[in-house]
Amino acid sequence: MNHKTISLIFVLATFLAACQSTLQTNDVNGDVVEQLQDQALSSDLAFEILASLTSEVGPRMGGSEGDKLAVKWAIEQMRNLGFDRVWTEPVNFPQWLRKSESAQALVVRKPKDPDVLKWMEDRSIKIEPSVYDLAVTALGGSPSTNGEIEAELLQFDTLEALEAATTEEVTGKIVFLSTRMRRSRDGAGYGETVVNRSRGPFVAASKGAVALLIRSVGTDNNRLPHTGMISGTEEGEPVPSAAVSNPDADNLMMFLSGKEPVNIRLNLDVGFEEEITSFNVVGEFDGRDDVTEFVMLGAHLDSWDLGTGAVDDGAGVALVMAAAKLVADLPSRPQYGIRVVLFANEEQGIYGGKTYAKLHQVELGSHLVGAESDFGADRIYQFRTRVLPEAEPEMQKLAGYLERLGIERDLEKPAGGGADIGQMRKIGLAAIDLRQDGSRYFDWHHTANDTLDKVEPENLQHNLAAWVTLTYLTADTKTGFGPVEPSE
Amino acid sequence: MNHKTISLIFVLATFLAACQSTLQTNDVNGDVVEQLQDQALSSDLAFEILASLTSEVGPRMGGSEGDKLAVKWAIEQMRNLGFDRVWTEPVNFPQWLRKSESAQALVVRKPKDPDVLKWMEDRSIKIEPSVYDLAVTALGGSPSTNGEIEAELLQFDTLEALEAATTEEVTGKIVFLSTRMRRSRDGAGYGETVVNRSRGPFVAASKGAVALLIRSVGTDNNRLPHTGMISGTEEGEPVPSAAVSNPDADNLMMFLSGKEPVNIRLNLDVGFEEEITSFNVVGEFDGRDDVTEFVMLGAHLDSWDLGTGAVDDGAGVALVMAAAKLVADLPSRPQYGIRVVLFANEEQGIYGGKTYAKLHQVELGSHLVGAESDFGADRIYQFRTRVLPEAEPEMQKLAGYLERLGIERDLEKPAGGGADIGQMRKIGLAAIDLRQDGSRYFDWHHTANDTLDKVEPENLQHNLAAWVTLTYLTADTKTGFGPVEPSE
Repeated sequence: MNHKTISLIFVLATFLAACQSTLQTNDVNGDVVEQLQDQALSSDLAFEILASLTSEVGPRMGGSEGDKLAVKWAIEQMRNLGFDRVWTEPVNFPQWLRKSESAQALVVRKPKDPDVLKWMEDRSIKIEPSVYDLAVTALGGSPSTNGEIEAELLQFDTLEALEAATTEEVTGKIVFLSTRMRRSRDGAGYGETVVNRSRGPFVAASKGAVALLIRSVGTDNNRLPHTGMISGTEEGEPVPSAAVSNPDADNLMMFLSGKEPVNIRLNLDVGFEEEITSFNVVGEFDGRDDVTEFVMLGAHLDSWDLGTGAVDDGAGVALVMAAAKLVADLPSRPQYGIRVVLFANEEQGIYGGKTYAKLHQVELGSHLVGAESDFGADRIYQFRTRVLPEAEPEMQKLAGYLERLGIERDLEKPAGGGADIGQMRKIGLAAIDLRQDGSRYFDWHHTANDTLDKVEPENLQHNLAAWVTLTYLTADTKTGFGPVEPSE
Repeated sequence: MNHKTISLIFVLATFLAACQSTLQTNDVNGDVVEQLQDQALSSDLAFEILASLTSEVGPRMGGSEGDKLAVKWAIEQMRNLGFDRVWTEPVNFPQWLRKSESAQALVVRKPKDPDVLKWMEDRSIKIEPSVYDLAVTALGGSPSTNGEIEAELLQFDTLEALEAATTEEVTGKIVFLSTRMRRSRDGAGYGETVVNRSRGPFVAASKGAVALLIRSVGTDNNRLPHTGMISGTEEGEPVPSAAVSNPDADNLMMFLSGKEPVNIRLNLDVGFEEEITSFNVVGEFDGRDDVTEFVMLGAHLDSWDLGTGAVDDGAGVALVMAAAKLVADLPSRPQYGIRVVLFANEEQGIYGGKTYAKLHQVELGSHLVGAESDFGADRIYQFRTRVLPEAEPEMQKLAGYLERLGIERDLEKPAGGGADIGQMRKIGLAAIDLRQDGSRYFDWHHTANDTLDKVEPENLQHNLAAWVTLTYLTADTKTGFGPVEPSE
């Protein structure tokens, strides 16, 4: 079947559904949904899954030993939860390794007394620089410095300022991009500053820099730098690149406010190794009817190596598994199936999501709608949709039940589907976004601080209540949600 | 002169002062004090001094290169501020060095399926443990592990529980004290849990343990462990000892909740080296009159090595220097002098304070009163006094002006004088404590997170206003405050 045929069938189904007296169905659904929500609001299941993942697996960077353990863990968890089918799908990517990383700032402090200074200069007495250790972490995908390098630090407020600089200025220098990320509920500050991390290494290279330091793309003031991937799609080769923590970035600014140049010693033993294989882990609960269609819930199984990946994206993994379980355990299953996909190596280039979309594009019609949890563990405040116009009554029903949880609908923008499921959205998958409050997310994101203690069990329960609502209402419906117009 | 004679003179002076019409003096003082307070509330001086110390010197653990730099910095700063005299006094102590530190937890995860487990056991298949890196830091004064050691982890809720354990239970184990510090304004939670750090290493040794891990004595949830000294006065030899961060301590508790024993690999390359000399740095402003008496303000110049010592105790250093400067810059100096003492190596055993007290005990009578700032940089909410009864009217005057800043007097307990000046209090020095809100202090105390960004300039200004009040009122008085009854 091509997309148009599928679309037509869905439109027809919607029409037929609309012809029925929907009142009774809604009422029945209503009881079930409210009970499900209440159950979720007092359920420990998501937190238990998350605690198991963060303590029994811990850090699980794509391709690492922890990643292998995570795949085993996910299979075992899904089996224990009673998924009707559990399988894996291989995902290939180049393995990037972090072996060691260190950086120091070298600052020359000349005596403030001009007589003393002249006395020293007359005698050619060299002032040895003071050495300050920086809290630093290599950016994912960075090449190695191949031993320690030392060069003068050249600071720019923004990537645009670096782009406007001449090659002459920058050549031979270590560039420092000092832009600070602003805090916001929807994480808009991340989009504004993450270009330093993604494109900075290539722009610095194009200007002749020998390396790049960025201020961490994060909203905290902890001495824990934020890692994250440099872009995989830019032209050219990036320079060796690392992030310093916010307090260290502040200190670099203080050093640079002096009269003397500041040198940086940088030693990054990191880089790409062989191609390696990890796995998307997929689990399915059947629907009430013998059908091939299912609702797709997703999160990514991998994390960065510095923390235990509790908020990114252990919480998402736990939520979609727990939501599927609660809905499947109803006395009467919803009509359609529920597929949970735990994606491999989202962090280093959305490898799991891209691989899934390629493999499953021919069965797009079986995917009723997709939704992904990958923005921490704080409360959901809003939702967005990207569905066929004829599914609007169903979305209004969803809105009604989510309103009960204090979640509003945003009609300004369509749902994106998340990084991984967004790959399927690009080819036409309908999507719903349950949008979490991201005010605190970037305090911990991609740092050693991403650990279980950052997750409040009640917030996870609130999330779970929204997820069971979405899962049940989309899996137990006569309306088609998509396919929708493909969009980038 | 002996103390009794001094006391008598002070009593006499108080009596004479009381006979005068004090109203006019008070009014004049009043204008000056209020102007001083207002000036302090808008002064950047303390923050500027602190920014200079944390960026130009940075970490300054007793005996380190940073410590030497700090002594030079302090001399230069005091000279630039126009102190009438600046000098140093040698302080000797054994140098303790942190070269490297690491720890891992080894956790065996057996398959949950009993059939699989039996299958493996029948074939004597050994399950390799998973290895988890812990965020760990050696406690100051810890001996080295002399290479990597590995032993089973044995957890106790409290030090009392460890004390109650048998030697048989503990021998050969690595003890884990998991007590969590509670948050409080006055830092009472610190006193309750710091015994794990100070006495734990000796108790663990007496029970036959090979090493000690403690949960960090801190109120935060950052992956940044809290260092701090083990006691220097206990009998016997301590075991190698380290603190894990709070999130890592949580994770250890999760590991220990499993059925299998948890092993720890610990490698601490640390320990005492040669005896070394650092310096108390002392600066004085003369009083209006040609007298030998002065008010003593103190803070400690050293910090731990992990952070830049902004809240512990850079803020104190900045405050007492700035307060002395503001008061000395008045059109008319107060009657008596102001002595600022920046103590050496408080962190590792109050070496500067003890050395100062020994050297200066014969001139106790010249020290009118002592006050120390060493509890961070948040607002002062309360003050305590330890003075002669006849100084009570002066204390009430002080209370009146501090009330203007929202600071209340606590009459329940006498002032302690702080760690360093407390050494002089023990031999009879009168003392006043300006007590800071310590609710956030132990989030950063003794960690890499102790950096300038944790200090809010307005809070430092509020502190400064209280410090100029105390300094001016005690230096411009006819009343003696001490000596008081010596007390431990």
